[in-house]
Amino acid sequence: MSSATAFAPATVANVGSAFDVLGFALEHPGDCVHASVSASSGVRILGIEGDGGRLPRDPLKNTAGVSVRALLDHLVAGDASLASLGLDLTIRKGLPIGSGLGSSSASAVAAVVAANAALGEPLARSELLPFAMEGERVACGTAHADNVAPALLGGFVLIRSYEPLDVVMLPAPPQALVVVATPHIELNTHDARRVLRRSVPLSAAVAQWGNVAALVAGIFQGDVALMGRALEDKIIEPERSQLIPGFSAVKSAALDAGALGCSISGSGPSIFALCRSRQSAERVGESMQLAFSQVPLSATVHVSPVNPLGATIVARG
Amino acid sequence: MSSATAFAPATVANVGSAFDVLGFALEHPGDCVHASVSASSGVRILGIEGDGGRLPRDPLKNTAGVSVRALLDHLVAGDASLASLGLDLTIRKGLPIGSGLGSSSASAVAAVVAANAALGEPLARSELLPFAMEGERVACGTAHADNVAPALLGGFVLIRSYEPLDVVMLPAPPQALVVVATPHIELNTHDARRVLRRSVPLSAAVAQWGNVAALVAGIFQGDVALMGRALEDKIIEPERSQLIPGFSAVKSAALDAGALGCSISGSGPSIFALCRSRQSAERVGESMQLAFSQVPLSATVHVSPVNPLGATIVARG
Repeated sequence: MSSATAFAPATVANVGSAFDVLGFALEHPGDCVHASVSASSGVRILGIEGDGGRLPRDPLKNTAGVSVRALLDHLVAGDASLASLGLDLTIRKGLPIGSGLGSSSASAVAAVVAANAALGEPLARSELLPFAMEGERVACGTAHADNVAPALLGGFVLIRSYEPLDVVMLPAPPQALVVVATPHIELNTHDARRVLRRSVPLSAAVAQWGNVAALVAGIFQGDVALMGRALEDKIIEPERSQLIPGFSAVKSAALDAGALGCSISGSGPSIFALCRSRQSAERVGESMQLAFSQVPLSATVHVSPVNPLGATIVARG
Repeated sequence: MSSATAFAPATVANVGSAFDVLGFALEHPGDCVHASVSASSGVRILGIEGDGGRLPRDPLKNTAGVSVRALLDHLVAGDASLASLGLDLTIRKGLPIGSGLGSSSASAVAAVVAANAALGEPLARSELLPFAMEGERVACGTAHADNVAPALLGGFVLIRSYEPLDVVMLPAPPQALVVVATPHIELNTHDARRVLRRSVPLSAAVAQWGNVAALVAGIFQGDVALMGRALEDKIIEPERSQLIPGFSAVKSAALDAGALGCSISGSGPSIFALCRSRQSAERVGESMQLAFSQVPLSATVHVSPVNPLGATIVARG
């Protein structure tokens, strides 16, 4: 029986103006999943570390379990002899839950990548996306791909459409450094979605897609200043930021300290900023942490380039 | 006294999903303007060919005259000794008026490029944009840049914002061939703008900016199929296409003949399609022309790559 351990990184979705269509991967933090092929059929979760006991151990309710179950069902449909196989999963959470860093996606992706490796890589990396999306459906209610896809594939990933699923991989500009500040509170994605208006003025929508276009151009050109300006979001951020205590002070602190752009990561409460050097990013991170401390909220800060690779196999056995 | 003649090409603005933010240049057709420095101050229009006598000869009402007047005022403000100089313009229209191919922009751009050359190139190419935009203001009521900028600079050009003006040059993917079919009717941009709703559902806006993002990615990757899919516009096209007789038959004909995407050029009535080869583009052009003929409307078809250079100086004297 074979086994593998995979790491899948944190991801930033709803990238400023690019609400619901774009996400990118960080190099760290992230989740690890160990998958081991077993002779008794089905998916089992042997243990979860780092979640404070909060995640479901039932594989039908756990994002990693559901993803691997969907993968296994697909493989069995193509080769009935696999029906007797099972997969045992052990999950090590490095990502805080409900933080806006794609915690559930990282577990789902690490799980399918580890399971696929343990099974001898029957599928190519990009073919794993629909199964990881099933895990996201359990966690969030909808099979969104804007965290799952960059966690799996790395770089910036654009979801052009869901029906049919049309995923476009963009580069990971090496010029960009990302600062993410995560305050120690938790937001529920459902609440964050509920605050959004159902319709927007055409003029605001046009300004937004001008920014989205510029963001993609900046990503291809490695122009971090353009990326930063293009994060400007007059539609989603003004509404969602009300759920994040201290948002405007933290954003101002980031920009004043030299960040080229700043917005909400996912549906929050994490806030990310773009910088052009590690030195600048570290100064920005300290300023964001200080601004959160005045709310007062403690916050964890990570500085990372955009991760060009996505999930990685860290051990095979 | 020095003189120069410049050619500025047709442009396609409101590129499918990218309403109001993106435009690109064709290689032909276009307008030519001859500018000649004269010893008597002021801007004069000596003649206009190809407009059937419809364009104003008064330089304060003519897009080319206004653009060159704005350029000259700017130069005089920096060097009062130029105040005694004048510029005489002769305009040769190659573009039909009110066709959705950026006719007024081509005249404005050709005029400022010719005038700048006749004056010994005091300004760099990109510095001419604000003056050509003034010409657009006379023609359309607002200083839009989405035709002027690609006519001046070539390739695809993105207008991220107007305040401040933020213009992003994108590549001209050599893989793309553009078919433009222009029916022999005329639409007024004001009418075309009046049919638009003032607000859009958030879900439609999100789908639109996903497509805009994909369009920009396709432009950078030279992926014409992606560009074609990403033209999909569920907001503007359904409304504006009602003003173009035969639109849906012509679009269907283009797609059935192998076009990878098709939408309205500018505010119409021209319709453009994207193809991957000249052979395919010519077949698509014939099909579009045939579909227009069944309306019945006669139509002119042009096949052109995206023009990477924009306006060119065709003679100096």
